[in-house]
Amino acid sequence: MSRPTPLPISAFPYITDITTRWMDNDVYGHINNVTYYSFFDTVVANWLIESGVLDIAASPVVGLVVDTQCSYFSSIAYPDKVRAGLRVAHVGTSSVRYEIGIFRNNDTTAAAQGHFVHVYVERKSNRPAPLGEKHKQALEGLKA
Amino acid sequence: MSRPTPLPISAFPYITDITTRWMDNDVYGHINNVTYYSFFDTVVANWLIESGVLDIAASPVVGLVVDTQCSYFSSIAYPDKVRAGLRVAHVGTSSVRYEIGIFRNNDTTAAAQGHFVHVYVERKSNRPAPLGEKHKQALEGLKA
Amino acid sequence: MSRPTPLPISAFPYITDITTRWMDNDVYGHINNVTYYSFFDTVVANWLIESGVLDIAASPVVGLVVDTQCSYFSSIAYPDKVRAGLRVAHVGTSSVRYEIGIFRNNDTTAAAQGHFVHVYVERKSNRPAPLGEKHKQALEGLKA
Amino acid sequence: MSRPTPLPISAFPYITDITTRWMDNDVYGHINNVTYYSFFDTVVANWLIESGVLDIAASPVVGLVVDTQCSYFSSIAYPDKVRAGLRVAHVGTSSVRYEIGIFRNNDTTAAAQGHFVHVYVERKSNRPAPLGEKHKQALEGLKA
Repeated sequence: MSRPTPLPISAFPYITDITTRWMDNDVYGHINNVTYYSFFDTVVANWLIESGVLDIAASPVVGLVVDTQCSYFSSIAYPDKVRAGLRVAHVGTSSVRYEIGIFRNNDTTAAAQGHFVHVYVERKSNRPAPLGEKHKQALEGLKA
Repeated sequence: MSRPTPLPISAFPYITDITTRWMDNDVYGHINNVTYYSFFDTVVANWLIESGVLDIAASPVVGLVVDTQCSYFSSIAYPDKVRAGLRVAHVGTSSVRYEIGIFRNNDTTAAAQGHFVHVYVERKSNRPAPLGEKHKQALEGLKA
Repeated sequence: MSRPTPLPISAFPYITDITTRWMDNDVYGHINNVTYYSFFDTVVANWLIESGVLDIAASPVVGLVVDTQCSYFSSIAYPDKVRAGLRVAHVGTSSVRYEIGIFRNNDTTAAAQGHFVHVYVERKSNRPAPLGEKHKQALEGLKA
Repeated sequence: MSRPTPLPISAFPYITDITTRWMDNDVYGHINNVTYYSFFDTVVANWLIESGVLDIAASPVVGLVVDTQCSYFSSIAYPDKVRAGLRVAHVGTSSVRYEIGIFRNNDTTAAAQGHFVHVYVERKSNRPAPLGEKHKQALEGLKA
């Protein structure tokens, strides 16, 4: 297995700040590997909401998560703060592959990074739905 | 059951900022009741760390949580931000009762509030240990 | 503050089994205090679903959590299993106060116990709604 | 991106039962993608503990998670029960790559599957440590 190289924060057009919580630390005193995916989830949703693309309660089309992955390079521990960076790697007809970097405090090299793939479906029927124009335009700004 | 009155943010000498996460919202679209206790936990630990009282890895004496309670007044939902306020209600020989208010975004009236009681014990023996002088002094600054 | 006495498992008419997870343990090697409320939430919801009272997706009336409390007597740690006991303490016009005991593995004395208060509201308007007949009948079976 | 094919439960030599929790469901009414990694974490740790390989409190050597991945095929929702299957894909000098399948209730085709890579390090120095003999023997039983 070849390991990816940690990306710099400058590789990510969108950054969001996340505060860690006491219970994020596991028995070894570091943020548990599971919790990083909560950061992934949050940076994607923050961007979608700020871009005006996602209305949690009312959107007729929603993104289902079909694939996620994370490589862990170095540890983060509460009470560290986290910066999560987001960029887009691939835009399909009804899917988007995002890449995410997780940075500890003011570090500029990723402590962890990975991907997150959304497939868009109609909320009621669960059938694939093409990305909207507004969403595609917003994704232009996420290209690395 | 008589309901407590929501406190103003000015009732709390210490305030910490917490970011919410996508997965904090439950099926009804609001932060789940459980997650508020994660905010409680975090504001207490933030204060202890900033006061120089808690060293997670090395402290020979640790606080065990023996009682917590929360009254919920109004809902908060991701992507809201949270401010958590902390004050001390009672200082015993080896215990501290904190009171906590949870505020939505810039609201100045609590969306939820409750208490959190720590009993201090020796990490190795689990026997009660008196509060340290530094801790007692720091608690003076948390009196409402 | 007077401490409650741990209840026996026989005090609870309804019991549900819960498995613990690696990440439930915090840095001190025990289930974090926050997670107990997830057990509270789950035993109440399990009972409501098994009683045919709650349909998560379709119920026009939903229970809002307005008050929760937990006293912690002794620790539980992953990979322990948990049994959560449920009984009803008070039934109002549109509210129910449940009492919950948390038991470690086959222990018959509670490791933690507390309460959980639901107020029923119309999902759309958020206005208080009286408990349904089916719910009130089911609650008869939860009386200690 | 080619999608993996869901594996049958018979592909996994070790199975563990996991109960879901009310708060595992997100705003769309399904188990949040993050929570699946908590199931991954738990099936690996359950197997390590049952195999006598892991002593959470005392092990001088611990497994650091360096890479995880999950493909989601179909949804699971509380109050569903989960079965998590575990097999080993690769054993290195100081690392193990596990493969995990997540099954809904009595379904025999995976609802989600992925991998989880542990690198073993000395707890104090954080330097890579070879897998112990007992661990290597136990891994023989996890080969598909």
